[in-house]
Amino acid sequence: MTWTFSAAAPVIDESGASRLAARSDRSGWAPDGTPRGVVVAHDIAEVQQTLAFASEHGFPVVTRGAGSGLAGGASAGEGAIVLDLSRLDRIVSIDPVDAVAHVQPGVSAAALDAAAAEYGLRYAPDPGSFSTSTIGGNIATNAGGNRAATTGSTRDAVLALDVVLADGSLVQLGRETVRGVVGLDLVSLVVGSEGTLGAVVGATLRLTPRPVGSAVAAATFADAEAGAEASAALALAGLRPVSIELIDGRTLEAIDALRGSALSQGAGAYLLVRAEGRGAEAEIAEVAAVLAQTAIEVETTGDDERARELASVRRDALAAIEARGPAIIEDVAVPRSRLAEAIRGIDEISESLGVDVHVLAHAGDGGIHPVLRLDDDGPASQLDAARTIDAILELALRLGGTVSAEHGVGALKRRWARIELGDSVVELQRRVQAAFDPNGILNPGKAL
Amino acid sequence: MTWTFSAAAPVIDESGASRLAARSDRSGWAPDGTPRGVVVAHDIAEVQQTLAFASEHGFPVVTRGAGSGLAGGASAGEGAIVLDLSRLDRIVSIDPVDAVAHVQPGVSAAALDAAAAEYGLRYAPDPGSFSTSTIGGNIATNAGGNRAATTGSTRDAVLALDVVLADGSLVQLGRETVRGVVGLDLVSLVVGSEGTLGAVVGATLRLTPRPVGSAVAAATFADAEAGAEASAALALAGLRPVSIELIDGRTLEAIDALRGSALSQGAGAYLLVRAEGRGAEAEIAEVAAVLAQTAIEVETTGDDERARELASVRRDALAAIEARGPAIIEDVAVPRSRLAEAIRGIDEISESLGVDVHVLAHAGDGGIHPVLRLDDDGPASQLDAARTIDAILELALRLGGTVSAEHGVGALKRRWARIELGDSVVELQRRVQAAFDPNGILNPGKAL
Ligand SMILES: Cc1cc2nc3c(=O)[nH]c(=O)nc-3n(C[C@H](O)[C@H](O)[C@H](O)COP(=O)(O)OP(=O)(O)OC[C@H]3O[C@@H](n4cnc5c(N)ncnc54)[C@H](O)[C@@H]3O)c2cc1C
Ligand SMILES: Cc1cc2nc3c(=O)[nH]c(=O)nc-3n(C[C@H](O)[C@H](O)[C@H](O)COP(=O)(O)OP(=O)(O)OC[C@H]3O[C@@H](n4cnc5c(N)ncnc54)[C@H](O)[C@@H]3O)c2cc1C
Repeated sequence: MTWTFSAAAPVIDESGASRLAARSDRSGWAPDGTPRGVVVAHDIAEVQQTLAFASEHGFPVVTRGAGSGLAGGASAGEGAIVLDLSRLDRIVSIDPVDAVAHVQPGVSAAALDAAAAEYGLRYAPDPGSFSTSTIGGNIATNAGGNRAATTGSTRDAVLALDVVLADGSLVQLGRETVRGVVGLDLVSLVVGSEGTLGAVVGATLRLTPRPVGSAVAAATFADAEAGAEASAALALAGLRPVSIELIDGRTLEAIDALRGSALSQGAGAYLLVRAEGRGAEAEIAEVAAVLAQTAIEVETTGDDERARELASVRRDALAAIEARGPAIIEDVAVPRSRLAEAIRGIDEISESLGVDVHVLAHAGDGGIHPVLRLDDDGPASQLDAARTIDAILELALRLGGTVSAEHGVGALKRRWARIELGDSVVELQRRVQAAFDPNGILNPGKAL
Repeated sequence: MTWTFSAAAPVIDESGASRLAARSDRSGWAPDGTPRGVVVAHDIAEVQQTLAFASEHGFPVVTRGAGSGLAGGASAGEGAIVLDLSRLDRIVSIDPVDAVAHVQPGVSAAALDAAAAEYGLRYAPDPGSFSTSTIGGNIATNAGGNRAATTGSTRDAVLALDVVLADGSLVQLGRETVRGVVGLDLVSLVVGSEGTLGAVVGATLRLTPRPVGSAVAAATFADAEAGAEASAALALAGLRPVSIELIDGRTLEAIDALRGSALSQGAGAYLLVRAEGRGAEAEIAEVAAVLAQTAIEVETTGDDERARELASVRRDALAAIEARGPAIIEDVAVPRSRLAEAIRGIDEISESLGVDVHVLAHAGDGGIHPVLRLDDDGPASQLDAARTIDAILELALRLGGTVSAEHGVGALKRRWARIELGDSVVELQRRVQAAFDPNGILNPGKAL
């Protein structure tokens, strides 16, 4: 085929290797076939040309950041054009008085945060893929992180977006000011739209001062349910530390196996609580007092070095599980008041279906990552995994929760998204999507 | 005409008095003609019946809360059905662990906040019309308040909405959990849509713990520009107190006239800074140190009674201005870094067009309420006011700001909204609106 663009032609990579790589993201899921080719865009004009060209020919377009997604959102199949924005990776400007950054979509949150730090500022959203994913991908998935319950998810940090629509036109959505109510909030709509409304080619992001002071509490409990109940007790006591991470006993065993530590001896769960700000030490003291009512042991520290050590348990958790064999990271949420119940239910599912499920939870807001550990990659294991995941998603909905807390619907959760949203809301979403992309060329078969 | 509903008929008030009252909101603006009648809904079914009926006949529907709006959003003209939701005013439930409230749309933020206080919680959005406006109206306008820069506007507090669409169908948007990324964010879209997407008949709202501790600083400056520059200095110093309110010299004179005080003697501006949380007193001490570099005088207090006295200057400001004659409350925002420049520009406009303009600003995020004081209600004064407002809106846009920080577009700012957004974004918004309301019966002629 011929790639004819109205103006200068973008670099198109039709090599087998690139096309193959673009078939999947970090979920490993790949659709049938291979994409037509990969356009690595180096400026906005190339993005516009690519989309105008695709529109003209009715070719599907899959916008891609770093491909770190866990829902198959960036996985591209037969006939698609992959629009890779990872090379648009400049931080355009940072204004220290407005505490606002202008960035291209390919920059990582870690790079932006480091640049902001020079002004005493930080970029608050902190997904685990902070250093490897792109901000464009974070915006498209509304990425969360450990602190999301208190400092917000990606959506809360976005003031304005430059978006190239399906027809190749460029629109500027939102505004430069923190306050403003003119027009429908199309910025919040594009955030989390998983590449179905347009390609994000620029963003105006809010920064916040780096926190003054921090403190950490780490506590062990008999089991994960007791840890979840302790986090509900913190909420009832009016405490909202910046993050509350819960790690279950199975995961502690994996960490012990990796490190040669003895965390799991005499403890069935680990709760890591972080407070920030001028009152951090006082807050952590109050946190510790509440935790002490049911914990086996509680340690608090205001020392950064010790805090890092206590936090390393959470940081190493995923690697420790993955060291034991193939793992699938799931992602649901339930109301905070149902967290203990959800953990009990996941345990029962794990037992009855015979798949090891580790639980990591953002306990402050009911986010849960059940991590399935498979014996091998074979079809029997995959089938067991699929049944286990279905049971967990069904449980999350039964408890008033959601089938995706932060990773997105992508290709993998479309059936469940429809169950969660209901047909009439899905139809409404489709109509809204069509207002942006009437011919449905943007990431078809994903999200909606 | 006959009001035929499929089921039990809602109470329809076709009396002249009700129809006349519904012609306007607190802006005073009224369109031509009078509405057909007012439906005072007592349950969701009545809302559904009204919208289905209106759809069938192609009658426009203006949803109305308390009518406290300042942009003519709820003002209803010839042929419209007014759908009054103020009687749906129940707080359905409050869950203290989840810190979530379920409410009907007619309840006021003040009533919800008072109910939340019994659990040590608060409803954070704090518009000046806290006690008089409805939460449905707050949601429809994304109402802000003094604290919005730090504790968020109404949008930040909304998790889920029950919405009756133009065709009378009821949809549930959003979710009960704080985290969640399934589907397009239609909740954020409905928030701020000024009654053009559907009637909000229920809301799930986030509550937050009532703050532990607070402290206040009040400072006087030579003029409002100096106050604005001091607030930029606070931002640069990494300080983000919960609110920073700026009051100009003209307003201080009005307050002196009302109270017999002497605030304006030797001071041309007043800056009121509030900090909350465990570190409030330490934060206010840092704030005071920055302010002291340029202020005439700075006072700090951790005492509630004294804090209330210091804050009364802001609380009485509007009444003091209105005591001098007819007043128009305007509403723009600029990036924080341009606030001093905006104030200087407003002063120049006031001088050159001969209309007294008082300035109240949410200095923490660049929100500005220029308050025009007219000599009388006559047509010459109205014309001067219109020219002054146009010049102020043009100034806000020139400085990278917005023509409405919180009051909305309503009927009064449509022309300016189009200038701010640009034709292509307005067309996109129209298409999105049509996805909800294909026949355009919801608040036509408003917002978009
Ligand atoms: C180790 C690990 C930890 C993780 N931790 C977290 C976590 O804590 N929280 C969390 O939310 N996620 C997490 N993730 C998931 C993933 O990193 C996020 O979803 C991330 O936001 C994806 O960014 P990306 O640049 O890799 O996007 P991709 O995977 O390339 O794409 C993701 C989706 O966004 C779309 N997209 C990408 N860029 C654009 C653009 N510029 N314009 C329009 N659409 C675009 C794609 O079409 C696709 O639908 C983790 C993943 C890994 C591997
Ligand atoms: C003294 C005073 C102080 C104010 N201070 C502030 C402030 O600090 N911040 C601020 O943002 N505003 C402020 N306002 C403006 C006004 O109070 C807000 O816009 C408020 O949110 C309007 O609520 P309401 O119930 O009066 O709505 P209305 O005026 O009745 O309606 C406003 C708009 O919302 C729509 N609407 C109302 N209810 C619903 C519903 N249930 N579903 C769908 N659409 C609906 C209407 O169609 C209309 O477009 C102030 C007003 C006054 C008079």
